[in-house]
Amino acid sequence: MSDARRDDAEADVVLNRDELHSICCQVLSRHGFSEPHVAAISEALVAAEMAGSRSHGLYRLMGFVATLGNGGVIPDAEPVVEDTAPSVIKVDARGGFSSYAFRQGVPGLVSKARSSGIAILAINRCVHATALWVEIERLTQEGLVAIACNPTQSYMAPHGGKEPLLGTNPIAFGWPRPEGDPYVFDFATSAIARGDIELHRRQGDEIPLGWGVDRDGAPCQDPGEVLDHGAMLPFGEHKGSALAIMIELIAGPLIGDMLSIESTEYDQGKKSLPYHGELIIAIDPARITGGDSRQHMLRSERLFDMVQQQGARLSSERRYQARQKHEAQGVSLSRALYDDVMKLAS
Amino acid sequence: MSDARRDDAEADVVLNRDELHSICCQVLSRHGFSEPHVAAISEALVAAEMAGSRSHGLYRLMGFVATLGNGGVIPDAEPVVEDTAPSVIKVDARGGFSSYAFRQGVPGLVSKARSSGIAILAINRCVHATALWVEIERLTQEGLVAIACNPTQSYMAPHGGKEPLLGTNPIAFGWPRPEGDPYVFDFATSAIARGDIELHRRQGDEIPLGWGVDRDGAPCQDPGEVLDHGAMLPFGEHKGSALAIMIELIAGPLIGDMLSIESTEYDQGKKSLPYHGELIIAIDPARITGGDSRQHMLRSERLFDMVQQQGARLSSERRYQARQKHEAQGVSLSRALYDDVMKLAS
Repeated sequence: MSDARRDDAEADVVLNRDELHSICCQVLSRHGFSEPHVAAISEALVAAEMAGSRSHGLYRLMGFVATLGNGGVIPDAEPVVEDTAPSVIKVDARGGFSSYAFRQGVPGLVSKARSSGIAILAINRCVHATALWVEIERLTQEGLVAIACNPTQSYMAPHGGKEPLLGTNPIAFGWPRPEGDPYVFDFATSAIARGDIELHRRQGDEIPLGWGVDRDGAPCQDPGEVLDHGAMLPFGEHKGSALAIMIELIAGPLIGDMLSIESTEYDQGKKSLPYHGELIIAIDPARITGGDSRQHMLRSERLFDMVQQQGARLSSERRYQARQKHEAQGVSLSRALYDDVMKLAS
Repeated sequence: MSDARRDDAEADVVLNRDELHSICCQVLSRHGFSEPHVAAISEALVAAEMAGSRSHGLYRLMGFVATLGNGGVIPDAEPVVEDTAPSVIKVDARGGFSSYAFRQGVPGLVSKARSSGIAILAINRCVHATALWVEIERLTQEGLVAIACNPTQSYMAPHGGKEPLLGTNPIAFGWPRPEGDPYVFDFATSAIARGDIELHRRQGDEIPLGWGVDRDGAPCQDPGEVLDHGAMLPFGEHKGSALAIMIELIAGPLIGDMLSIESTEYDQGKKSLPYHGELIIAIDPARITGGDSRQHMLRSERLFDMVQQQGARLSSERRYQARQKHEAQGVSLSRALYDDVMKLAS
């Protein structure tokens, strides 16, 4: 192969939103996911890819197909919605991906938040594999303030410990802004998302100190050692560790679902995507401050302005900029990723 | 003065729970706080002192009296409870300390959480000056899972910024354990509580790097410079900063109350204790998992055991140990603090 041809074969592939969506649908349909699952998952993956969140983008398809192959997800599970209390709605995902279960729970959650002021959506027995902010944005579109979190598998040591016990346990928050995009954050309570360590391994890169420890509990920069034998570490020392424990509890036993360590045991070493529950809380500002709610929400604009004026960044800013750029120019996927995904599509 | 006499004059003073309580009541009554305020505040301060949380203990009395002198708190404010939605209860503290307002809101919050599954208590127009975990423990006693948070004043720069904008914005969480003390955490979203920096200034100690910046935004170890001219910093970089912003929003505009920056402006340089709102969320596990809730809660005991088995600490552990020790041996106050407090009592 000449140098020119190798360069060409290794060049990035630029795809627009429709093309990304079509590839996702093709891969998922080809592997037997039912239509509503294909629609819900593809929307979430494309949203992540467009927003520059690569670790939650098309790259996930390989894990989805591997999990399906392990029997770790049911591709045509039909979620069951249950109304258990005036401010609680539960959705049993019955072993399917969470995205479709979330969609089925949204109408009840929105209605309960609007009637009660605050409501819980508990999703049980789901495989969660997409970014939480996608779900949060769905709720801010309804004018609701929202918080979402879930355990994962026992990847992370608590602060002061060295054995994997806690999940990377993401937490996301959304605040609707009267004009423009919502304020949204979504972060793992680990120092870094597991997907980012996996990307380092794929690319053969070292990871920075502080992300994980090796099998003996010593600081470690080898992504493979941290992922396979050691443990990830929480962000923010004992505070991040405490938040991760809170998420284990409120999105685990509180809703009758598994702790991360239980999810790992359930997996029996298959390395499927984590099977667990998810907790979403939605609040209707209008039920708290009544007719004045819009005026109060507008006061928060000053806070956002003052963050940006001193050179700091709002959590969601980079995502919105990426989305704008990608809508105009398309998303550039590495040739290796593109080839891996296309192999699954045919 | 001989060396012996100076030693004696500087010796610590050991006080038991009743003595601490009696001193608090004496100081607060002497300065005109009404009986229910005296009772509620004294309980909170003594609880903190007994639990080894010095920055929320009797040391606070000086700030309370100074704030009263500035007109920054109303010593006999009678809170007004309002039932605004099936899962929302509001208490207007009318400028008084939050402790009494919280007490008045608890029956409604507990009842709404039990009937709806989840409920909000929004306290408005309060001066918040005690530890949140005291309030959280009150709710875990009812078998409820609880989260509480509040803005403060604009003491802290957002991550990547350098000007004071955000509050130190504490967040606390409680999980009732079927046997024994609850799992509780309570931390500032700043790298360290403001009270701890103030204690360093009182003691003439430097502060570690990472707690704050000077007036030019440079790292700073002088507690006075950070408190009076610079800014505190969030814990956990952009993640802690995002959490602090969330707290500004949900315990500020969402409940119709002030942002930290608005609270600072309201203060007009008097350096009173922060006047703002507080948000408490309570969840009844029994309304989510029904008759199985105790069994699910018991699964979390394994998580707590596994944290401790690997040598890590549970957030609340140190507090319970201190409480046990102090119940047996009394609390040792520095002579300087004791003298300052006793000056206020007479």
